[in-house]
Amino acid sequence: MDLFDIKGPKFLKNMSITELEQLSSDIRHFLIEKLSRTGGHIGPNLGVVELTIALHKEFDSPKDKFLWDVGHQSYVHKILTGRACEFDTLRQFKGLCGFPKRNESEHDVWETGHSSTSLSAAMGMVVARDIKGTKEHIIPIIGDGALTGGMALEALNHIGHEKKDMIVILNDNEMSIAPNVGALHNVLAHLRTAGKYNWVKDELEQLLKKVPAVGGKLAATAERIKDSLKYLLVSGVFFEELGFTYLGPIDGHSFENLFENLEYAKKTKGPVILHVITKKGKGYKPAETDTIGTWHGTGPYKIETGDFVKPVNTPPAWSAVISETVRKIARYDDRIVAITPAMPVGSKLEGFAKEFPERMYDVGIAEQHATTMAAGLATQNMKPFLAIYSTFLQRAYDQVLHDICRQNLNVFLGIDRSGLVGADGETHQGVFDIAFLRHIPNMVLMMPKDENEGQHMVNTAFSYNEGPIALRYARGNGLGVKMDEELKLIPIGSWEVLKEGNDAVILTFGTTIPMALEAASILAQDDISVKVVNARFIKPLDTDILHQIFAANIPILTIEESVLQGGFGSAVLEFAHDHHYQHSIIDRMGIPDEFIEHGNVNELLKEIGMTTEDVIKRIQKLAPKKQKRA
Amino acid sequence: MDLFDIKGPKFLKNMSITELEQLSSDIRHFLIEKLSRTGGHIGPNLGVVELTIALHKEFDSPKDKFLWDVGHQSYVHKILTGRACEFDTLRQFKGLCGFPKRNESEHDVWETGHSSTSLSAAMGMVVARDIKGTKEHIIPIIGDGALTGGMALEALNHIGHEKKDMIVILNDNEMSIAPNVGALHNVLAHLRTAGKYNWVKDELEQLLKKVPAVGGKLAATAERIKDSLKYLLVSGVFFEELGFTYLGPIDGHSFENLFENLEYAKKTKGPVILHVITKKGKGYKPAETDTIGTWHGTGPYKIETGDFVKPVNTPPAWSAVISETVRKIARYDDRIVAITPAMPVGSKLEGFAKEFPERMYDVGIAEQHATTMAAGLATQNMKPFLAIYSTFLQRAYDQVLHDICRQNLNVFLGIDRSGLVGADGETHQGVFDIAFLRHIPNMVLMMPKDENEGQHMVNTAFSYNEGPIALRYARGNGLGVKMDEELKLIPIGSWEVLKEGNDAVILTFGTTIPMALEAASILAQDDISVKVVNARFIKPLDTDILHQIFAANIPILTIEESVLQGGFGSAVLEFAHDHHYQHSIIDRMGIPDEFIEHGNVNELLKEIGMTTEDVIKRIQKLAPKKQKRA
Repeated sequence: MDLFDIKGPKFLKNMSITELEQLSSDIRHFLIEKLSRTGGHIGPNLGVVELTIALHKEFDSPKDKFLWDVGHQSYVHKILTGRACEFDTLRQFKGLCGFPKRNESEHDVWETGHSSTSLSAAMGMVVARDIKGTKEHIIPIIGDGALTGGMALEALNHIGHEKKDMIVILNDNEMSIAPNVGALHNVLAHLRTAGKYNWVKDELEQLLKKVPAVGGKLAATAERIKDSLKYLLVSGVFFEELGFTYLGPIDGHSFENLFENLEYAKKTKGPVILHVITKKGKGYKPAETDTIGTWHGTGPYKIETGDFVKPVNTPPAWSAVISETVRKIARYDDRIVAITPAMPVGSKLEGFAKEFPERMYDVGIAEQHATTMAAGLATQNMKPFLAIYSTFLQRAYDQVLHDICRQNLNVFLGIDRSGLVGADGETHQGVFDIAFLRHIPNMVLMMPKDENEGQHMVNTAFSYNEGPIALRYARGNGLGVKMDEELKLIPIGSWEVLKEGNDAVILTFGTTIPMALEAASILAQDDISVKVVNARFIKPLDTDILHQIFAANIPILTIEESVLQGGFGSAVLEFAHDHHYQHSIIDRMGIPDEFIEHGNVNELLKEIGMTTEDVIKRIQKLAPKKQKRA
Repeated sequence: MDLFDIKGPKFLKNMSITELEQLSSDIRHFLIEKLSRTGGHIGPNLGVVELTIALHKEFDSPKDKFLWDVGHQSYVHKILTGRACEFDTLRQFKGLCGFPKRNESEHDVWETGHSSTSLSAAMGMVVARDIKGTKEHIIPIIGDGALTGGMALEALNHIGHEKKDMIVILNDNEMSIAPNVGALHNVLAHLRTAGKYNWVKDELEQLLKKVPAVGGKLAATAERIKDSLKYLLVSGVFFEELGFTYLGPIDGHSFENLFENLEYAKKTKGPVILHVITKKGKGYKPAETDTIGTWHGTGPYKIETGDFVKPVNTPPAWSAVISETVRKIARYDDRIVAITPAMPVGSKLEGFAKEFPERMYDVGIAEQHATTMAAGLATQNMKPFLAIYSTFLQRAYDQVLHDICRQNLNVFLGIDRSGLVGADGETHQGVFDIAFLRHIPNMVLMMPKDENEGQHMVNTAFSYNEGPIALRYARGNGLGVKMDEELKLIPIGSWEVLKEGNDAVILTFGTTIPMALEAASILAQDDISVKVVNARFIKPLDTDILHQIFAANIPILTIEESVLQGGFGSAVLEFAHDHHYQHSIIDRMGIPDEFIEHGNVNELLKEIGMTTEDVIKRIQKLAPKKQKRA
């Protein structure tokens, strides 16, 4: 059928299984073809084609509510709810979001992006339903990876206790983004192979029949044994212990299996967990055979070969520069231990893992644990390097504050994907870290202007022994600069003057430095002389340079790819007023007080007024053009 | 023995069980007597007397490392490590800390305060130990309540997976601060009664002996059944499934039981969980019979009767004012649902719970889940009220940002214990919430000047339908003002001029308003006329009042009992510069960039320069004394 004709999921109700299988095939072709051009989360979506169709046939969305945990597996749901025609704009500026979005459709009842939130939200919806006395089904769909996130476990504990009706779909594809880790994963692996123990149940009956008739206590014991054994071997004791009815595991690509179990789940009172086994990338060979997560989310690719369409000769990725420098230093400092919460590939730690397997810990989706584990290592005089995406560090705010900074421990935080991240959009923008870290005592926070400074900052971080130190770096690639052979130390709190000037000063760091330099050179043609400072330490500030600038009473423009409220620019304001530079002119450029949606980073920067032209205009206001000299 | 003579735990090595029992009794008397004067966490400490003694006798601290989760149960540990003589200063300014503190003793290897951190920290220490190749034992001691915190569950998952040697002591007293909730609690309750199933194990042997000799597969089945059943009935399958060796449950007040099991745990490879049953308040009748958590932490009390020494006729507690107003409004708005993460008593929600049991959710120590559950409720047009201590809201920063504010949901956050909290000290000061909430888009943040305004703010919050709204309120009691009969609405973002003046302006809110008014009235005697503004909305600011003040070019002093970096004062600086009030004089008073230790709030305020005298001095600098008119 033509997927563009789908207006909503009702058409599924009268379809036969053969027709649904044809639909699955159509959707797979559609996704493989569309995503080959736009990129996107191909693997997760190919894995849930049958599951999503079955859910929409069995339930009545939007009355019944689907909560897609993490949300990057919601493409099939988007197709079935009338959004196929928008896939050419997937993850693009003003285009279709890569995650559930409430303003896109009434079928998107809960927005996700960060993992492990669906069970808690579902609990809220279930409580609301029961107070109102309505009867809809609440159905969170959560992956095996997301289930290890602490808040999902908190929710399991509460849901199992309250015993309200809820159908949890555990979408178990044996890997989330990278291969999964953790004891829970082993529990699931055990359940997946439970099929082969099914014979035990039958043979148990036989065995117990052979027991001579006994009365009283011993007969009761035999009954109890029978119950217990069944419980242990065939029914997911881990989840049953937590108060859930466990169903499964079932084949998530078999409509017969799905319908049978969804119907059973619907009739079951209390919370149910339906364990569905799916295959990531199902139906597309290159993605199906992926074992390390390459096909989790991709850019454009060639359908026939599965080759990625990549620009040639790009500079190295920021995460590679940082992680490879950590690896280099780890060769002569055996106190260095690397930790990642489920992002070994994204944070480019595969090389480190290969060379130092005993000093590399992928702890799964568990940012809080990762952060405090790093603190524990630091108490023992080790040198932990925690690589963590800026947006996911939000999950560990309290651990950074209460465990690392309060105890002033030597933890090195590598804050990956800082600043705008682009296509992943508002759930993933790394624009809050300055504002949520700057006010924590003892924190040192820096960002390099290029890869070469980046490697020196890694070296500086490991040499620093006076407390926590964090290094922000952007998503994407560096500038391609020449790398020094020898690693240097950068004095803590020292800025660098990149260009001298007397009419105005730009204070900025990281990705916005090129914009500042370009604006300064254009303004120079108008005889406006702009000083540009690489304010590479966001905390502590370089007070020498600041005093010089304020003493000279030059107007200042601060630029940061980060929220303005409480950000770097505010730190400069605080400094000015604390030191009674009352007449200082300070203008701040950065992310306004709103959430920034998905789109190409340059388009986003243009939208919020952060381009070279904007810098020029603002400097012109601060330092009006002088009369041309004759 | 005289507890003051204890220099360290070595003296325990040669003591007999009779002597240890005498020591336990001495310690109990000591604690009951000392804490009757200072107050403190009496219940938890009386519960762990034998456990702590047994640990220190069995292991070699500080080589072996104890990590006291939450940490308020570390008093016995402090006595055994030579700190008995400091108990007169417990929780007082510059006195003994109520939590483990690394600068107090080499035996305090990990500082706690917030719950559920010990397992992650222990994992870090275990990894460090194994890389170094040393052999010490790492022993986190965690309560049954703290175990439900998401980060503890993340850690369990990782520890069980890695299989490294660690001895986890599960101190199960059947309640943490309030009676426990959650499915895990039921798992533990099941284990506690497992004793009565022990007979099954023996009878199983008998039963299986009665099975006629069978060969091959059936014999293997019988063996498997035996193993499984033992596993299920007697050995904590929940923890075993997660990869731990489970020991217990044992009586935590029996030295014989403790030593036998600790020795066994020492010899066991891989992670062990030793389930110890203790009784909170053991040995002191009023505390032993407490069922709701009254004796968890207390102020001074009369030993004989257990009556609390309380000042008479104090104004109502802030938390009571807020929660009782919520209850009042809930009588005519059935969309209101109250949520607390394990603090029903502290947040004074008992009345609400009694009147609206079906609209009250205590989710246990699970701040992340509580916050996102509130978001889920809000998507269904309910009116969730989440009562949460400021310091614990740090755990849910990402949930506030990603789930509530990003989706702009109508959640009402009641931020309890905002500002300095006093005796609990640096782990519990509620001084970061302004800085970590102000930069989140869509957030409204307010703080009342007195209880009457507080009740109107609760009403305002429930009437506000445009997104999240947060109300900060202090620990302790209100001012005792007259309460209006009828609830009013306060316009969002509106400040209130409390006193007019032309020479300087004080912008402040909440607990620091009396200080500002007092300073203003003293300064008036010197003919310095100070305007005092109740800046009750921290976000959004009252831009009308700000424009008036800046237009009049009057110097400003901002006062906040909150961190200065990125705080309210910074918001005023941002406003001034965004609106080009370049020559404005703004001075900010608040908490400096350091962690504030425990002590009486007034002593702490004096220490950091936040007294009426300090306000006077700073205003005098901003607006020098005018010549006296004739």
